[in-house]
Amino acid sequence: MYDKEFLMIPGPTPVPERVLLALAKHPIGHRSKEFSAILRRVEEGLKWVFQTKSDVHIYTSSGTGAMCSAIGNLVNQGDKVLCLIIGNFGKRWAKIAKMRGAEVIELEVPYGKAINPDDLKEILDKDVNKEIKIVTMTHNETSTGVTNPVKELAALIKNHGAISVVDGITSLGALECRMDEWGIDVLISGSQKGFMIPPGLAFLAANDRAFEVHKKCVYPDFYFNWTDYKKNLEKDTTPWTPAVNLIVALDSALEMMKEEGLDNIFARHKENAMLLRQGIKDMGLKLFVEDEKIASYAITAVLPPEGVSVPDIRKTLKEKYDITVANGQNDLKDKIFRMGTLGFVSRRDVLTALASLKETIDELKK
Amino acid sequence: MYDKEFLMIPGPTPVPERVLLALAKHPIGHRSKEFSAILRRVEEGLKWVFQTKSDVHIYTSSGTGAMCSAIGNLVNQGDKVLCLIIGNFGKRWAKIAKMRGAEVIELEVPYGKAINPDDLKEILDKDVNKEIKIVTMTHNETSTGVTNPVKELAALIKNHGAISVVDGITSLGALECRMDEWGIDVLISGSQKGFMIPPGLAFLAANDRAFEVHKKCVYPDFYFNWTDYKKNLEKDTTPWTPAVNLIVALDSALEMMKEEGLDNIFARHKENAMLLRQGIKDMGLKLFVEDEKIASYAITAVLPPEGVSVPDIRKTLKEKYDITVANGQNDLKDKIFRMGTLGFVSRRDVLTALASLKETIDELKK
Repeated sequence: MYDKEFLMIPGPTPVPERVLLALAKHPIGHRSKEFSAILRRVEEGLKWVFQTKSDVHIYTSSGTGAMCSAIGNLVNQGDKVLCLIIGNFGKRWAKIAKMRGAEVIELEVPYGKAINPDDLKEILDKDVNKEIKIVTMTHNETSTGVTNPVKELAALIKNHGAISVVDGITSLGALECRMDEWGIDVLISGSQKGFMIPPGLAFLAANDRAFEVHKKCVYPDFYFNWTDYKKNLEKDTTPWTPAVNLIVALDSALEMMKEEGLDNIFARHKENAMLLRQGIKDMGLKLFVEDEKIASYAITAVLPPEGVSVPDIRKTLKEKYDITVANGQNDLKDKIFRMGTLGFVSRRDVLTALASLKETIDELKK
Repeated sequence: MYDKEFLMIPGPTPVPERVLLALAKHPIGHRSKEFSAILRRVEEGLKWVFQTKSDVHIYTSSGTGAMCSAIGNLVNQGDKVLCLIIGNFGKRWAKIAKMRGAEVIELEVPYGKAINPDDLKEILDKDVNKEIKIVTMTHNETSTGVTNPVKELAALIKNHGAISVVDGITSLGALECRMDEWGIDVLISGSQKGFMIPPGLAFLAANDRAFEVHKKCVYPDFYFNWTDYKKNLEKDTTPWTPAVNLIVALDSALEMMKEEGLDNIFARHKENAMLLRQGIKDMGLKLFVEDEKIASYAITAVLPPEGVSVPDIRKTLKEKYDITVANGQNDLKDKIFRMGTLGFVSRRDVLTALASLKETIDELKK
């Protein structure tokens, strides 16, 4: 049905009506006192979600822009960067670092698994001359539905003296992630996920340790420049014209998040994901990630039943039930489909999705 | 009055209701057929405004992002870049190129003037070994209200064999700019200006000559990567999650632009600016750019009358008349104020602004 689509992809995610109406307001001047007041409030809200005292930079970009910001403000040509890879998005860090001229070391595990902290420790222990400067990782790997043990990994990296760079694009505002307490040095996220607003903004927080490394960056990125952002943030503004309407929408979304409370948000994501996983198992389908300890509460990847194809499942769900789910990516294309329970998703939505998926499978099996 | 603000700054500019309502629609999946169809239509619309057969890349960024894209996809460390500077935004090209490691030559004229093609010719003629690889310029310099003779400048650059890179952020969709016919190699623009949508998107078109230079770029920008954008555009998609809602809004704005027609749009901007200039002169104020041949039809910079300060004019216009005009930038701060007639601005708006400005000045002179 026209205009009836329900998104269960890992982003964009559904946007609340209150936020859509805020988005549709006439833009105001980005150098006005009124906008600075909004920016200040949004900044405080982001720090609350990031669980950090560091500034959170707001970029007009997709999440990949914030990834480029991290690499482009830290890495010089020839620097050694260790990339922990459990899926496509972990691999993206390696691609960005290589295009920046870094020497990249990859620790890659079979997709569907998480990084074992012991494997990271082994690599870091061997690096006796402390040549590894940066270690990148994905908190919640959207391509597989696996959550990395960031707390343990970040502690090992801190102990070694390297800078930890964490992609929290699909975890912030959905899964517990304590930047300061866990000792994460650089944490990034994006708008169209747990933050419940449309795509177009990305966020990055860097602590003092990371800023020390940034100062030695010879040709830092201009558009995403940390020094410029920091300087402007002190005056409640941004170096370049920001996406004013999206920031006004974010102000509204953060208000909703505060009303619900972070712990309640995390609990809702967990409950919804567990309900989805149980329902999927109950209808005889297999989960791509069976290990409950690493299974994501934001994205669930499902294997199609014998004799039924992923494209047919997606097509039927979309055309008959107006529900959009994601295909697998690259090697996992047509082997899994992925359902998001990320952001503005209620228990009712999960039940609706399960009922629709059951009818879809039954019909396709005929 | 609350929610009554009228923007006469050089961006964000007023957004039509039809576009705001399009912006507020629920986001759809960016990898869907429906979104690809919108992207294809928007792409055709942008080519029409750019007056080019080349692809137009759509970035989720401010206009400065598109500037970084141009430099970051063309320039290697040590490359010679000539920057033609008639104001702040011309200077920004030089800053970006320097931060990229380029050897920058600056041709800077007093602010309020345009580049004289003879001065450019002299520099290019002296460059007998063709070491100058890139020449940057601003079409419409927002900080001063001056329009450069891009047609003449681009022709000289083409003749020399360098690549011309033109900032059309506040000119596209407002002033005549024929990319292909004038031989511009790289042309960029932004969303919150002549395109009548809120900030958050930037556009870049590069012709085949520019792409040949791009191929020799050793460490091209990752986020704004031309090769990736080109490859994805062939499949009616983007490499990273785009700002879906802003693109849907742009689709609606381009529809309005087609209804009006490019020539009518240019004529409206010219008429509105001429009406504004005449009205300002009639009330005894001085224009910062008196030469009609280089005065911008998008932005008009005005000198305050003796004994009246720019901050007081801006404050009164805002608080009593709900009209926001811009201050001067850097050295011109508090020396001029700038009024935009850019984008969704009608003759009625100009008359309103003139009447309000007249009352403001009369009151402040008392």
